[in-house]
Amino acid sequence: MTTRFARRMSAIEPFHVMDVMSRAQALEAQGRSVIHMEVGEPDFPTPRPVVEAGLRALERGQLPYTVALGAPALREEISRFYQDHHGQSVPAGRIAVTPGSSGALLLTMGVLIDPGDEVLLTDPGYPCNRQFIRTMGGEPVGIPVGPETGYQLTAAQVEERWTERTRAVLVASPSNPTGTTIEAEALREIEAVVRRRGGRLIVDEIYQGLTYGPPARTALAISDQIFVVNSFSKYFDMTGWRLGWMVAPVEFVREIEKLAQNLFICAPAPAQAAALAAFAPETLAILEERRRELQARRDFLLPALRRLGFDLPVTPQGAFYLYAGCEQHAPDSFAFAIEILEQAGVAVTPGRDFGRYRPERHLRFAYTTSMENLREAVERLERFLAARR
Amino acid sequence: MTTRFARRMSAIEPFHVMDVMSRAQALEAQGRSVIHMEVGEPDFPTPRPVVEAGLRALERGQLPYTVALGAPALREEISRFYQDHHGQSVPAGRIAVTPGSSGALLLTMGVLIDPGDEVLLTDPGYPCNRQFIRTMGGEPVGIPVGPETGYQLTAAQVEERWTERTRAVLVASPSNPTGTTIEAEALREIEAVVRRRGGRLIVDEIYQGLTYGPPARTALAISDQIFVVNSFSKYFDMTGWRLGWMVAPVEFVREIEKLAQNLFICAPAPAQAAALAAFAPETLAILEERRRELQARRDFLLPALRRLGFDLPVTPQGAFYLYAGCEQHAPDSFAFAIEILEQAGVAVTPGRDFGRYRPERHLRFAYTTSMENLREAVERLERFLAARR
Repeated sequence: MTTRFARRMSAIEPFHVMDVMSRAQALEAQGRSVIHMEVGEPDFPTPRPVVEAGLRALERGQLPYTVALGAPALREEISRFYQDHHGQSVPAGRIAVTPGSSGALLLTMGVLIDPGDEVLLTDPGYPCNRQFIRTMGGEPVGIPVGPETGYQLTAAQVEERWTERTRAVLVASPSNPTGTTIEAEALREIEAVVRRRGGRLIVDEIYQGLTYGPPARTALAISDQIFVVNSFSKYFDMTGWRLGWMVAPVEFVREIEKLAQNLFICAPAPAQAAALAAFAPETLAILEERRRELQARRDFLLPALRRLGFDLPVTPQGAFYLYAGCEQHAPDSFAFAIEILEQAGVAVTPGRDFGRYRPERHLRFAYTTSMENLREAVERLERFLAARR
Repeated sequence: MTTRFARRMSAIEPFHVMDVMSRAQALEAQGRSVIHMEVGEPDFPTPRPVVEAGLRALERGQLPYTVALGAPALREEISRFYQDHHGQSVPAGRIAVTPGSSGALLLTMGVLIDPGDEVLLTDPGYPCNRQFIRTMGGEPVGIPVGPETGYQLTAAQVEERWTERTRAVLVASPSNPTGTTIEAEALREIEAVVRRRGGRLIVDEIYQGLTYGPPARTALAISDQIFVVNSFSKYFDMTGWRLGWMVAPVEFVREIEKLAQNLFICAPAPAQAAALAAFAPETLAILEERRRELQARRDFLLPALRRLGFDLPVTPQGAFYLYAGCEQHAPDSFAFAIEILEQAGVAVTPGRDFGRYRPERHLRFAYTTSMENLREAVERLERFLAARR
């Protein structure tokens, strides 16, 4: 029997960091110590009030399907959160609770993208974003971005790259892998271009609560015609639960509901029940403390990496990543990542997972590990680089 | 701003049963009693040992992402289940744990279907199956099936409908909405046609444990080149948890892993932890008791509906549905379903949710409610039909 894969599969790459991770596991199996800075998920457990809400739901025992757009009480909680924390009125009727932000991105592309449509996004950027587009037959168009724009798109770039086939622009703020946020004014300018061109703006706010400068704003303040994607994984520390949400222009809600019914039935009910406690004051107090801890880690790691000769011209204001230029040390960041792992015992993600624009010159460092581990990692890197000269 | 939806959305219908459900809720809000026979999920709670495994996982507190194909221990459990209960050797390496069987079907179509490809399936059939195909740009080709083939495809039909664009055949056994199973020999014949034509056979075994005749076999006994989709929702009573699995030909596993990484990251971790107890003897004892209860319900409801003049020429051997011809009572099953709801206080699903082949002549009755409710429903229907004459 011949093995034939759908054509989209040839454009879908595996996560190269998996190679790093499996080598790291092999080293650990040999008794070597590895500090993990390649992992894109918080090292904090799910906050106790959220876990307890989950435990109560399980104890009650009945966990049937919810309606496709999510439990009404959770949609109301999210709506209230926008009001209380962003001063933004977002009716629950525009909110869909999804299986992770992955589900939200799949639904967004599903209702927007026809085969052949183009979507503009940053290069570097989160790799899966490109695949949601390709899954729907669309074409992700990576726009190279660098430190001069804080690794974010500008209205001029969007204008320049717009073609007759362009259907949407995807902006991520804070961004993975760069941790940078987009200025409100820059986003407003992009929105104006997209609106004038008759396209759609999608804003990935998955890391929204995790910012270390001025409080994060939501793009929903700019227009009610923007698609916004968010997540319970990162700020709320619920990665494995697989829960996210999206806010859609009201005209799209019915279509999103139809597609969600068919593709997912609903988001996981235990996660939905647990997330009802995600916005409680005691949970938010825990999360605020963790945010400060992440800020302290960034404030330690950023100057330390700069001192070690990594190129970090922009101070990232969010997420938990530093996207570091490593040209001074090595010409190929993938080989360099393997070398760092094997020689220094530090696992990092090579740039090639994030696009085609200078990936070989960059490494992503995730500060999703304790301050103690970060100090140790910096010492290891220092010794490794000194020995290498 | 113009509202433009992706073209696929025009082919994706909402669930018409939702209209019945919202009318039922409105009646209940007025104090009317409604017996729910429209619901496609078991009325049993998740078995206690499974819930307890979930509780323990939550108590441990750490619920990070699992690897994309699922927790290795769970894949091993599923593999062992095939060995112990089907006498079938299915290596864990061919098993992917997915967010519901929905996730499994999305992955299957994602790795197989190019835009324009056709997939043959039964009409009537589970509506979402058509949408997974359309989402990938493919074309579902419904083959009308009736009682003469037990509402299942035959090799001759597959042969006749095969075109140059046909890529796959999807068989569901037991089937939703008809509850019928396919004979092993008939499936083997279909597999031979599909193999000869260079296509792929996909078998939906979502209702597999729920059979009331000879023990269910898995299509994996026929060939290791078949895609098999299964679920923890129906037999294992874990609907809201959103967990399923698939078994793929070994050559496809790497592609499935890539797509799962990108589209889902992983299936929900609480559900994966809970499902580790799904195959324990104490769980299976509970499930066997429930299966017998469902069989008793079928054995009550089937002759009762026949006596009331519904056309049920085939005795379904599985799932928890009866797909009843209602031509003798009304020309339009959708209007009839609303009438039954409003006049008799019984909610059922109109045929139009399941395809285009004589939907207006059929209603789906789900026996996912207690024997007491079923008796009451039959009495209500009897009074309603008598008054209507």
